[in-house]
Amino acid sequence: MPRTAALSAASAGAPLTATTIERRELRDDDIAIDIAYAGICHSDIHQVREEWGSASFPMVPGHEIAGTVTAVGAGVTRHRVGDRVGVGCMVDSCGECAQCRDGHENFCESKTVWTYNDAHPDGEPALGGYSQQIVVSENFAVRIPDGLDLDVAAPLLCAGITVYTPLKRWIPSQSDGPARVAVVGMGGLGHMAVKIAAAMGAEVTVLSQGLSKEQDGRRFGAADYRATSDPSTFEDLRNRFDLVLSTISADLDLGQYLSLVKPFGAFVTVGLPPNPQSLPFGAVITGDKVVAGSNIGGIALTQEMLDFCAEHGIAAEIETIRADEVNEAYDRVVKSDVRYRFVIDTSTIGA
Amino acid sequence: MPRTAALSAASAGAPLTATTIERRELRDDDIAIDIAYAGICHSDIHQVREEWGSASFPMVPGHEIAGTVTAVGAGVTRHRVGDRVGVGCMVDSCGECAQCRDGHENFCESKTVWTYNDAHPDGEPALGGYSQQIVVSENFAVRIPDGLDLDVAAPLLCAGITVYTPLKRWIPSQSDGPARVAVVGMGGLGHMAVKIAAAMGAEVTVLSQGLSKEQDGRRFGAADYRATSDPSTFEDLRNRFDLVLSTISADLDLGQYLSLVKPFGAFVTVGLPPNPQSLPFGAVITGDKVVAGSNIGGIALTQEMLDFCAEHGIAAEIETIRADEVNEAYDRVVKSDVRYRFVIDTSTIGA
Repeated sequence: MPRTAALSAASAGAPLTATTIERRELRDDDIAIDIAYAGICHSDIHQVREEWGSASFPMVPGHEIAGTVTAVGAGVTRHRVGDRVGVGCMVDSCGECAQCRDGHENFCESKTVWTYNDAHPDGEPALGGYSQQIVVSENFAVRIPDGLDLDVAAPLLCAGITVYTPLKRWIPSQSDGPARVAVVGMGGLGHMAVKIAAAMGAEVTVLSQGLSKEQDGRRFGAADYRATSDPSTFEDLRNRFDLVLSTISADLDLGQYLSLVKPFGAFVTVGLPPNPQSLPFGAVITGDKVVAGSNIGGIALTQEMLDFCAEHGIAAEIETIRADEVNEAYDRVVKSDVRYRFVIDTSTIGA
Repeated sequence: MPRTAALSAASAGAPLTATTIERRELRDDDIAIDIAYAGICHSDIHQVREEWGSASFPMVPGHEIAGTVTAVGAGVTRHRVGDRVGVGCMVDSCGECAQCRDGHENFCESKTVWTYNDAHPDGEPALGGYSQQIVVSENFAVRIPDGLDLDVAAPLLCAGITVYTPLKRWIPSQSDGPARVAVVGMGGLGHMAVKIAAAMGAEVTVLSQGLSKEQDGRRFGAADYRATSDPSTFEDLRNRFDLVLSTISADLDLGQYLSLVKPFGAFVTVGLPPNPQSLPFGAVITGDKVVAGSNIGGIALTQEMLDFCAEHGIAAEIETIRADEVNEAYDRVVKSDVRYRFVIDTSTIGA
């Protein structure tokens, strides 16, 4: 079995340390990828710290993976050695159920195999992208277009698709003038949502706790930037938005956010607060409004998102770190002290 | 001013008694309607008993109105004397805002004038359909197709449109085989939802507290009928429905109902429980699911619904009562002791 350097947590909450892991031998439909960069997603931290329920250790996190194909199995047709590819949140699914056939491998009726903190049906542990190599089925790798550098492309594999999917589904196609989209929170997910929504032609407003990132928000394409700590924000923007996309994982006043939504519009969350939220049904009945959730997207849609980003010159804003800075970076992510995504240069693992 | 007999409540919770009220003189765009039948909606009871906040008294409830045009104003073009028409939950709106222009008079940005417990901008009190005559703008009366008798048509003006709107919006147009719809509750709204959803081609399951109305439900078009009091219902039907339409106004376990919804499907409520409900965001994020509300529908859609019902031979199941039975009927509605809608024969008011 090929061995590769990785950052691994031995147990819940343990620091990530450099180690060596095994990858499987290439199957017919597999490709081997030299990982160049791996993004740090807040969900990595939740899982390493076992904040989302029981987790599998040792854990190698990472589902924002960008690299280059180094070998292909005998039956591979989609990728060639030398191709620049990405891997996101999942590495396998049954391929046969209605959801898989419709391109929603993320909701496979049998089993979606997540990129880490999971296991394949044959028992192989799924170990993620904080690593120098990975072996995956060619069907779960997407092409990174030429216009996108690998470091700024890596976060698109989770943060990008996470916001692209609900923006594509919920921005109305017919509207008087540009659709109005509010993005709640401007972190790793939020900053991508601003860029993508603006590129989709929407008039974007950022709703952030304060105004410290306003200049960035406007540079990313926001037409307006408001502080949620200012009560006048909710008065001024009443019934204004076709879509309010929440990227925050804290408790929020759902009735208040729904008051910002136009009739027939939607509040969509990609953020997962730990507690259930209180929904007054009157807030959705009046105006035929929607509360929805969204969880990444299928492989074909992920490819579409990358192509869209390349076409519109969109990439993540990143701070590149060495492998030995990852534990400190985790603490900074928790404090929202990153603009806007950490990316690990995986060549520094064990260096 | 023309005077007409009506059933009126003098104050919150007072019984309805026969009295005489004034209707306005015909304006150019008005029609006068001889009301034949008025349905009893549960919301009438909530408002007469002031359970939905401060209300206007004396109150003449009733927003499920069916009758015949007896006079028309000088400028009326949509209706003629002798036409069979209906009036639902609203009697006016600004006609000029974006919502009115789009046919959503129920969400007028200026003011929707509700059929009762409301006032017109000029101060005229809005008095509802438990009455022998009403005068309304021709734009807020809809044609009752020949195939529909007035008594069984009356409840369509609220119960019918209330369920038609979300069924039309949320039943997916593309699906492998028939769409699967669950109707929660089989009262005045629910029984109409079963009939309409079945006529739309959906495979309908009723989710009711018990099985006492199963035979009726199947006769109305349900393919399956399950008791929510039986925990196996929620296990058996997991991830099954494109749409779960809730017509109940009691607290419910939203996470449990969302577990019945397929990925990308919707839980839609037309029932308004008095308390906010608890929504675990994970229940909508996993599977990109939707929670939505729906509140009646615009005038054009109401006409479409009546035409649809006539075409498919759909009408409300009713118990016709005399005016002096109305207070007793209210108590029976509260106890769910009606199959499935009371309709007042307004000719008996004061008789």
